[in-house]
Amino acid sequence: MSNGRPSRFITFEGIDHSGKSTQAKQLKRSLDQEGIRCIVTAEPGGSGQLGVEIRRLMMDSNIKRDELTAALMFNADRHEHVRNIIKPTLANGTWVICDRFYDSTMAYQGAGGMVDSAILEQLTAIVCEGMKPDLTILMHNTLREQRGGGARLDYYEQEHKSFEQRVSDYFLEAAKRESDRFVVVEEAGTIERVGERIFAEVKKRFLTPDS
Amino acid sequence: MSNGRPSRFITFEGIDHSGKSTQAKQLKRSLDQEGIRCIVTAEPGGSGQLGVEIRRLMMDSNIKRDELTAALMFNADRHEHVRNIIKPTLANGTWVICDRFYDSTMAYQGAGGMVDSAILEQLTAIVCEGMKPDLTILMHNTLREQRGGGARLDYYEQEHKSFEQRVSDYFLEAAKRESDRFVVVEEAGTIERVGERIFAEVKKRFLTPDS
Repeated sequence: MSNGRPSRFITFEGIDHSGKSTQAKQLKRSLDQEGIRCIVTAEPGGSGQLGVEIRRLMMDSNIKRDELTAALMFNADRHEHVRNIIKPTLANGTWVICDRFYDSTMAYQGAGGMVDSAILEQLTAIVCEGMKPDLTILMHNTLREQRGGGARLDYYEQEHKSFEQRVSDYFLEAAKRESDRFVVVEEAGTIERVGERIFAEVKKRFLTPDS
Repeated sequence: MSNGRPSRFITFEGIDHSGKSTQAKQLKRSLDQEGIRCIVTAEPGGSGQLGVEIRRLMMDSNIKRDELTAALMFNADRHEHVRNIIKPTLANGTWVICDRFYDSTMAYQGAGGMVDSAILEQLTAIVCEGMKPDLTILMHNTLREQRGGGARLDYYEQEHKSFEQRVSDYFLEAAKRESDRFVVVEEAGTIERVGERIFAEVKKRFLTPDS
């Protein structure tokens, strides 16, 4: 609790270079101005020394691993992150803004890397100890969407469309499936304008008198 | 298949310094003499570059992690090990002798580190793809047993007995539970004598005319 309001856990999702990290920091500035204590953290790597090492290993293109192995490594980092950073920070009344969380594993290792989503859901349940974002902001690149994500693809095209396209499509599907938790934000506009749209959403959900 | 016989997957388990590695090599020498192709490998770390890095991180006492995190990391290594080393080697007709496998995770992170065994069994099912040892040789230290493992402990003693004692007790319980898969070998005797006892067991199971 902070000023009588429960602390909130907000995640940003989207493909690389979609503006997640920039908007995570922008949201922190807006919350700071409202006098709401918050931190910005990120996955992979936000959990501490082990997380930094896991991130280094997973980003090293010389180290071969399959996608289930990657999912196990990212979940190891996530477990440390939840236990050591996310849970204690929220319990202390401070909001947590996190750049990527379990939706990224579902998108990259599941939709992208073709790991069985039931296995990934089992891993999420094991490591997150019930921790779920109150709000997930999906940074969506509309240009990419126009390039083919929206069109109906046949079986062959579906199988062979790019890894990144499968990831991007997954995020949109997740946002539709869990429309209460997700907000889809288009990247169009200046950092400040996009930031205002995001903060308006946060205010509406968590900072009005009845929230 | 090797000489018409199916290749076998044999694991060694036990606490540190129980003679596992020595006897794994001794068994390879005996199999070599029979003209049976085999390799000796080990966990953690046998899976390649990622495994070596995981082993290094998990053995570093300066890097804090909880036991479930460790179980995820060891299972990431195990998944690479099963896919890249154990399965292809067996498929090629070569026997695999492995110093530690999933029983070690059940013993160390489960019994020792108090991680829910149902979670560890889920992880085993996820990463091993049905791969199970044909024979597990438990190297058991009888001195340790006489020191207290066999005595009936009350609740308080049970809770506070040492990590290593819980690990050692778990291995014995697993051997009782899966008595077809396990052979318990006491360390007493020279390397050669212990090796002869182990090889006699391997011969009886896998190298007689009806095996």
